[in-house]
Amino acid sequence: MARRKVSSIAEFSLIRAIAHRFAECVPNLIKGIGDDAAVVAAKGPAWWHVTTDLLAEGVHFDLDTADPATIGYRAAMANLSDIAAMGAVPRYLLMTLAIPRRFKSASVFAIYDGLMEACRLHDVALIGGDTSASRAGLFLGITLIGDTAAGRALFRHGADVGDHIYVTGTLGDSLAGLRLLNEGRSPRSNRRSLSLPAAHRRILIERHLRPSARVKEGRWLNQERLASAAIDLSDGLSGDLRHICEESGVGAEIDGGALPISASCRAYAESRRLSPVDLAVAGGEDYELLFTAPPRMCATIERQARARGFQITRIGTVRRRRFGIRIRDIDGIMRPMPVASYEHFFA
Amino acid sequence: MARRKVSSIAEFSLIRAIAHRFAECVPNLIKGIGDDAAVVAAKGPAWWHVTTDLLAEGVHFDLDTADPATIGYRAAMANLSDIAAMGAVPRYLLMTLAIPRRFKSASVFAIYDGLMEACRLHDVALIGGDTSASRAGLFLGITLIGDTAAGRALFRHGADVGDHIYVTGTLGDSLAGLRLLNEGRSPRSNRRSLSLPAAHRRILIERHLRPSARVKEGRWLNQERLASAAIDLSDGLSGDLRHICEESGVGAEIDGGALPISASCRAYAESRRLSPVDLAVAGGEDYELLFTAPPRMCATIERQARARGFQITRIGTVRRRRFGIRIRDIDGIMRPMPVASYEHFFA
Repeated sequence: MARRKVSSIAEFSLIRAIAHRFAECVPNLIKGIGDDAAVVAAKGPAWWHVTTDLLAEGVHFDLDTADPATIGYRAAMANLSDIAAMGAVPRYLLMTLAIPRRFKSASVFAIYDGLMEACRLHDVALIGGDTSASRAGLFLGITLIGDTAAGRALFRHGADVGDHIYVTGTLGDSLAGLRLLNEGRSPRSNRRSLSLPAAHRRILIERHLRPSARVKEGRWLNQERLASAAIDLSDGLSGDLRHICEESGVGAEIDGGALPISASCRAYAESRRLSPVDLAVAGGEDYELLFTAPPRMCATIERQARARGFQITRIGTVRRRRFGIRIRDIDGIMRPMPVASYEHFFA
Repeated sequence: MARRKVSSIAEFSLIRAIAHRFAECVPNLIKGIGDDAAVVAAKGPAWWHVTTDLLAEGVHFDLDTADPATIGYRAAMANLSDIAAMGAVPRYLLMTLAIPRRFKSASVFAIYDGLMEACRLHDVALIGGDTSASRAGLFLGITLIGDTAAGRALFRHGADVGDHIYVTGTLGDSLAGLRLLNEGRSPRSNRRSLSLPAAHRRILIERHLRPSARVKEGRWLNQERLASAAIDLSDGLSGDLRHICEESGVGAEIDGGALPISASCRAYAESRRLSPVDLAVAGGEDYELLFTAPPRMCATIERQARARGFQITRIGTVRRRRFGIRIRDIDGIMRPMPVASYEHFFA
């Protein structure tokens, strides 16, 4: 099996093998893989959250720096992160693959294995999808469905002037990890990588290849009605804060000195003579949550986060729209937040 | 706008323009395009049907023979057909695009226009999706969600020995249309196309480029509990009948002389010295429904179909599994149904 190419496997038997491999008892699932559509039962009033992503080889991932299992894992996490940002419980995932002929079937199964590893962390079931040939690269189409109680969700709109701005976790690690991976592809790699201790290097690359979606944190913020707006950091703080501001009709002031930056990211920045704040602001794919909350909620938020072991950091304040989006640097100088575009592979 | 390339358009403003263009009042839609996930309200018990497809340039479509609006239209119809085969009401669609840099923004909007034309025929709302760059060809990821009453759906399993086998519409037209389009790409095209009257040519190409999903027929069969199993004909009668038989644990006998074949398809077959039955059996992407029903239902089915203006044809009978899947040709000779594989572009 491991040596056969996908083109030699009938599409239907591939789907059947996948269905068999991941057959599980899934609550409310009427029909999983193997019919014209997946069927799930909705028992009573709820809000259903649907997110979808198309991941392209050479744009969102690169087979030179990420193995198939990692690609599947990250594809699931990117979508889990979107559901986390709605405060929803992720439930059902569908994946469609367009597979180049050069691909071995073992690689296809590895994609599913990585995908399912991420899904199992959050009790998400694979309920459908499809495979087809690709004459170009590998493409993954992911659809993830979650739910919340009716009337209860975290949106991008809703941030109000005076609200505090928080993020979970640390920022910039994934971008540093991506750059380390890309440095590894250039001939000058050995010399440069020596300048960063191996432990930091490992941590940053791991943060890039194996991100965590903040599903628990999102559910907590939503269930306890603590946040006024939320988004996940997939495009980077600079880009995603802009979405919150546009949808909420507000501006924002960020305290550059307050940004949570890991020791590894700081060490990387120092070794490359970069500003760690710039990395944290530009960095994409951290999959942390960015959220806003009214000041009266903040004591509760910080107390509950400590009790639950959630790392959150206050990084700024919501301002009026005409204030724009500005960041105070470590020297106290306020400047407009750079309009960073997300750094894809090769972009 | 029309002359700008996609790479010069910020992804977010493209999504915003699309959201603005297709903003409609959608029942139960809490949040459409523009947040981390689309949100829809489920009010009471129901079954939700989710289907997803990834369509690849050079495999599922070809920009030489189909314009962007047609590609969007067909992508929607392929998924509408899956929902039709479940007997469900299609409701919400999400589309993700991976767009090559050479693409003009007008072409991107044309894809959405074609998609929405198909959606509007069935009151389906575009509620989400995403766009990204592609370093290879154009890729479309479609997710379509529909619903039925809880406990009520058409599955591939359920066909029983003795059941009658029906199809809607006519078979083979789409394959004939595809071949006509591909002939048009070869240097010998003019001579060959002259041998088929232009009206037939137009009808067959139209059937390939602008298929119809049998949503009304599927809902009828499901609501009236008339069918024991159903599937849509996307891979062709030979392939899709096999799915019904495998899922239901049965065999099938098809009467080749009974297959509904249009005058245009017959004329095409004659002009190319092909068997029209072979075209009907092998043809993919007809998007007709194939369904089975117990004999006691058949008078009702045929009467109601006439009353509602649905074209259905009985084409065979469900047999025991060990009978296999066989077709009786026009000379009365029974032979095994050929294992045809779906004929993609270039495949």
